[in-house]
Amino acid sequence: MRARVHMHLEPAAWPHKGLSPVNKVLAALILLAVFFAVVETEPIVVERRGAAILTIEAFFTIVFLVEYVLRVWIAPEKPAYAGRFGRLRYIVSVPALIDLVALLPGLFVFIGSEAFVVRLFRLLRILRLARLGRFSMAIHAITDAMKSRQYELLMSLTIAGILLLISSTLLYLIEGSAQPDRFGSIPRAMWWSVATLTTVGYGDVYPVTPLGRILAGLTAITGIGLIAMPTGILAAAFSDAIQTQRKEERDDVKGDGR
Amino acid sequence: MRARVHMHLEPAAWPHKGLSPVNKVLAALILLAVFFAVVETEPIVVERRGAAILTIEAFFTIVFLVEYVLRVWIAPEKPAYAGRFGRLRYIVSVPALIDLVALLPGLFVFIGSEAFVVRLFRLLRILRLARLGRFSMAIHAITDAMKSRQYELLMSLTIAGILLLISSTLLYLIEGSAQPDRFGSIPRAMWWSVATLTTVGYGDVYPVTPLGRILAGLTAITGIGLIAMPTGILAAAFSDAIQTQRKEERDDVKGDGR
Amino acid sequence: MRARVHMHLEPAAWPHKGLSPVNKVLAALILLAVFFAVVETEPIVVERRGAAILTIEAFFTIVFLVEYVLRVWIAPEKPAYAGRFGRLRYIVSVPALIDLVALLPGLFVFIGSEAFVVRLFRLLRILRLARLGRFSMAIHAITDAMKSRQYELLMSLTIAGILLLISSTLLYLIEGSAQPDRFGSIPRAMWWSVATLTTVGYGDVYPVTPLGRILAGLTAITGIGLIAMPTGILAAAFSDAIQTQRKEERDDVKGDGR
Amino acid sequence: MRARVHMHLEPAAWPHKGLSPVNKVLAALILLAVFFAVVETEPIVVERRGAAILTIEAFFTIVFLVEYVLRVWIAPEKPAYAGRFGRLRYIVSVPALIDLVALLPGLFVFIGSEAFVVRLFRLLRILRLARLGRFSMAIHAITDAMKSRQYELLMSLTIAGILLLISSTLLYLIEGSAQPDRFGSIPRAMWWSVATLTTVGYGDVYPVTPLGRILAGLTAITGIGLIAMPTGILAAAFSDAIQTQRKEERDDVKGDGR
Repeated sequence: MRARVHMHLEPAAWPHKGLSPVNKVLAALILLAVFFAVVETEPIVVERRGAAILTIEAFFTIVFLVEYVLRVWIAPEKPAYAGRFGRLRYIVSVPALIDLVALLPGLFVFIGSEAFVVRLFRLLRILRLARLGRFSMAIHAITDAMKSRQYELLMSLTIAGILLLISSTLLYLIEGSAQPDRFGSIPRAMWWSVATLTTVGYGDVYPVTPLGRILAGLTAITGIGLIAMPTGILAAAFSDAIQTQRKEERDDVKGDGR
Repeated sequence: MRARVHMHLEPAAWPHKGLSPVNKVLAALILLAVFFAVVETEPIVVERRGAAILTIEAFFTIVFLVEYVLRVWIAPEKPAYAGRFGRLRYIVSVPALIDLVALLPGLFVFIGSEAFVVRLFRLLRILRLARLGRFSMAIHAITDAMKSRQYELLMSLTIAGILLLISSTLLYLIEGSAQPDRFGSIPRAMWWSVATLTTVGYGDVYPVTPLGRILAGLTAITGIGLIAMPTGILAAAFSDAIQTQRKEERDDVKGDGR
Repeated sequence: MRARVHMHLEPAAWPHKGLSPVNKVLAALILLAVFFAVVETEPIVVERRGAAILTIEAFFTIVFLVEYVLRVWIAPEKPAYAGRFGRLRYIVSVPALIDLVALLPGLFVFIGSEAFVVRLFRLLRILRLARLGRFSMAIHAITDAMKSRQYELLMSLTIAGILLLISSTLLYLIEGSAQPDRFGSIPRAMWWSVATLTTVGYGDVYPVTPLGRILAGLTAITGIGLIAMPTGILAAAFSDAIQTQRKEERDDVKGDGR
Repeated sequence: MRARVHMHLEPAAWPHKGLSPVNKVLAALILLAVFFAVVETEPIVVERRGAAILTIEAFFTIVFLVEYVLRVWIAPEKPAYAGRFGRLRYIVSVPALIDLVALLPGLFVFIGSEAFVVRLFRLLRILRLARLGRFSMAIHAITDAMKSRQYELLMSLTIAGILLLISSTLLYLIEGSAQPDRFGSIPRAMWWSVATLTTVGYGDVYPVTPLGRILAGLTAITGIGLIAMPTGILAAAFSDAIQTQRKEERDDVKGDGR
């Protein structure tokens, strides 16, 4: 019995391709629960649909509580958590602790206070999303690609930091007296600088003196270079990954031909 | 007679390279009709040139109606629509139904009401554009290129979604009390977050607290990474396509040399 | 005598590497003249430095007039303009006509009127910049690279156009009644749409309804794809050009080894 | 004794991998000193924490002064600065002069004036950052990559300049009469043009006439091409660098196999 529950709940234990139907439903419920956790921060929704929200939260809490208890029960099926204190070791493992922490807000839904701590506490439910990582290895693949070029990407960030410092120092010197509340210190000028270098350009702060505008134009053009660097690095990394894969396929074909 | 009309109307049946003169004229008329459908939504144009618009619409409706009737008539020339009920099967085929639906608004130009349903109904004329797809295979080529990397592009979208959730949750916590109407809930903060991560930066919403601005700067820098990922993936995909093509050309040359 | 002037004025006739000293000075003067043509459109400059501007313009006009006369004089040195009517044929050639048209405003500096035609006429001096093209082949190199991928780049533009049409049609339907002056017709919504898809985001127009904002977010994310496409195409094209060049170098080395 | 200090202070003299503990502490102190130099430009910080700032500055000044004196003392350990006048030659070398200039503001912290010259003088402390370059060769690596494609990157800049000139000239002609203070001269229109072409889009200036908006849309689309060009060039350069490295590794493996 425990072995069958384990087979359905543990992705690695499922003998067929993909996820088991139980895990598919759980993944969908997690996405739905995160969606509701996001929507419930909206005061208008809370006002109008307060009762419905409590019911929905109660439902999710019961489902995930049952899932949590089942996962603790089947833990010894895995060799890592077998033997004495196996379940205890599972309970204090990082994924199980995240599950528990994400469950807590649901157990205290009756707290109606709007204090910051309560608000923060409720948002723990969004942590449920992290549990989806268990079902998918896709995120690991892309982070691996980034890790292979982490040195170059870090250099891009360093250059970005230096450009940020230079442009905000210059604008502080030039625009500081014309707009003291916006460019009156380097940290203040940095708010403009980061918006310009990343080409976001909110438009709440911008230079007004001719020299300031010329420097802002140069900063914006430099910003394009800042976009070009990581993009170029990642493009090269992805291109390299594809070619390595192609080469392996070709070598396999040659091997078969012998 | 029907065979000749078929040869001129059906791109695949044209024995020469490119499109037949009749289809070239039709493609131009479709572009013109879509242009007019767009312009006619402008109230100033309707006020000043109401009569001219009705005439133009009547002209397009007659031309596309004649084309539709001709296409129904020649349908049995194609093996797929030959035999009994062939024309009926053509009429209920997807492209013919799109033709018919795009024709409908022209048949009811006399409805002067400005109700939402009528407005929506009129816009069906823009669907005529979809008919151009019949004349060109270019769009299919680029969508194929995207499909070959759909897994990686989907991962980029997922990462974008996660970053959107993280940044709007943080800004909601930090700026929520300072600007309740703009950051007072995660869905509200998302409007700022999507504008910042995509580097659009409308500037209608931006953080004002120092901590909020630091996080906004980090979000904007992350946004550059978000642009870099799909760009890098597509660059690698296009590069791979070019190389495969070059390799094939080289292999052909080697084959000829034997 | 005429042969020597020809050698110094005609870039192709210069026996040494690079540009002749005379042409270097002329290129610098052209850049300076364009700079002044730009600055002189500023009313504040005209008010304060009116007299100085007239002197500067007179100087440039004389220099370029002398250059023009010399170029007409030496024209028969080139085989293309040799023989009878050779100089006349040179005068009606496109580059010589551009030279002449760019000279005209200088000859009429005394017209003090600020009428639109006069303003436009003065700007003809900016055409002098086109003459720099004669000294440099760099621009041709990059346009060649673009031409090799013109089909894919054109496809990107077509897709951009379709996305522009779709997003502005949707926003017109959704936001049209909430903000009739900004989204009350498809052409009006297009102004918002182009600013969002290109991630410029002026912030003068943005949706206010929840559904409009969700669609705007999707449009902005699509805009990133729109940036990614041409970038990816060009990256692949440049990468291909480098590899072809490397391969040629390698083949040359192998050829030498035999 | 001097040899041991030299070994700990001079990165190249350190026999182990990475930086010596002394240099690691110095690098951290430099980053901290720059951080404080930036923060101290903020008037609120100066008001509230004036005394603390003086203490911090005194601390940094003493540390870097000691370091400077030590570096002068150990200079003759390097062959380049050995022999008579070796220390003097070190003192007038560029890195030592930067160290000295960055030290000066700390020696004059008692100047309480807020005059522009004093402000500028204080910012010399940011120059300390340049000293970090001594500890890291990372920046050199990425600038080398850029140098290898400097010709193409320069061409991108030239094309950007030409597009800037064309778009601002056109907008000046079209929008000049409608918004004379914003588009009344080409230099004024350039402020809008640079914000649009780099897709920053502050939103303080934008065209209002229909023709101006159409041209602005075209400018924004061109801006995407402007981002695509340097990105594509850098992507190709990085891709080429990776492949060259891979090829070398493969050649090494082949060599070992013999």
